[in-house]
Amino acid sequence: MPLVRIDLSAERDNAQAIADGVHQALVDSIGIPATDRFQILTRHPAAELIADPSYLGVQRHDVVFVQISLVGGRPTDLKVALYRRIAEVLAPLGVRGDDLFVTLTENGLADWSVGNGEAQLLGLGTVPGLPT
Amino acid sequence: MPLVRIDLSAERDNAQAIADGVHQALVDSIGIPATDRFQILTRHPAAELIADPSYLGVQRHDVVFVQISLVGGRPTDLKVALYRRIAEVLAPLGVRGDDLFVTLTENGLADWSVGNGEAQLLGLGTVPGLPT
Amino acid sequence: MPLVRIDLSAERDNAQAIADGVHQALVDSIGIPATDRFQILTRHPAAELIADPSYLGVQRHDVVFVQISLVGGRPTDLKVALYRRIAEVLAPLGVRGDDLFVTLTENGLADWSVGNGEAQLLGLGTVPGLPT
Repeated sequence: MPLVRIDLSAERDNAQAIADGVHQALVDSIGIPATDRFQILTRHPAAELIADPSYLGVQRHDVVFVQISLVGGRPTDLKVALYRRIAEVLAPLGVRGDDLFVTLTENGLADWSVGNGEAQLLGLGTVPGLPT
Repeated sequence: MPLVRIDLSAERDNAQAIADGVHQALVDSIGIPATDRFQILTRHPAAELIADPSYLGVQRHDVVFVQISLVGGRPTDLKVALYRRIAEVLAPLGVRGDDLFVTLTENGLADWSVGNGEAQLLGLGTVPGLPT
Repeated sequence: MPLVRIDLSAERDNAQAIADGVHQALVDSIGIPATDRFQILTRHPAAELIADPSYLGVQRHDVVFVQISLVGGRPTDLKVALYRRIAEVLAPLGVRGDDLFVTLTENGLADWSVGNGEAQLLGLGTVPGLPT
């Protein structure tokens, strides 16, 4: 937890670095532990990733889609900080801000098993980064 | 926003037309702007797409899975209209109604960044198609 | 409904058996009908599945990711039973408990169309396995 899906073009040759960057941004902005890393990358032919070229004034050419499932409860300002930080970290990796699409889906502490068929977050009672 | 995942058999040779159709149905039925299009297609070997052949009286042979993330708040009648419209639009493309599976996951305005590390929907304060 | 995404290494040669096992665990633990089976498998190069090797004391080598969308309302004890049962069923298939990652995303009865552009669960008014 979180679980991060990254869907990007197979023509990008640095998918691992992009995945590293997305995780670093989660650590930097919303307090995810460095060791709390779970990511699924899927590399696609360019035609399988469809994005309007200009919706809401953004100029898209080659979108990287980042879909994050995480425990709910972060306030809006932390979410805003997360988006900004992902953009900052990925820019030097050739992902233009215009080409970054991020969406979040929230669930609860009971909705995660990170191994051994246990619901570890119930025992923790919270997750790092949530307001207390 | 919305973000639409379409998982379908690699044996279908008109994945792009199917993606066009799903988007058109969103525009027609729940007021998504024509330019608000974000889709991830994944083409699978047929064995990777598993669906019961007859659950709830439907006769499935070759299912197209459509998983839509969108801002919450549409009333039930609009969701019902969306499913019906997707089926109508895809039928001429060789997707039998029986082979259409759709599910929605809702989130909030703060849960989207459609470019440049910004949370654009917060500035808009709403999204098209929501009751006001 | 439910819709189950299973992302696993292409080096595993028994993806179909693993999918069978995940479904059996849903039937055994939370009352999903045997015929209510909808699964999307995606086989990945090992490098595309990223998991910390030891977060929360688990020893991960080759993670199988299971992402389940289902109608909300199951109590915590049923979710805990589900995770345990998936681990039990998959162990004989070479999926070590340490390598099993499960997460749930809940939605509502109006959020499903399992064929023909209809919202079948609205007509049912509930789904099997929910407390009444």
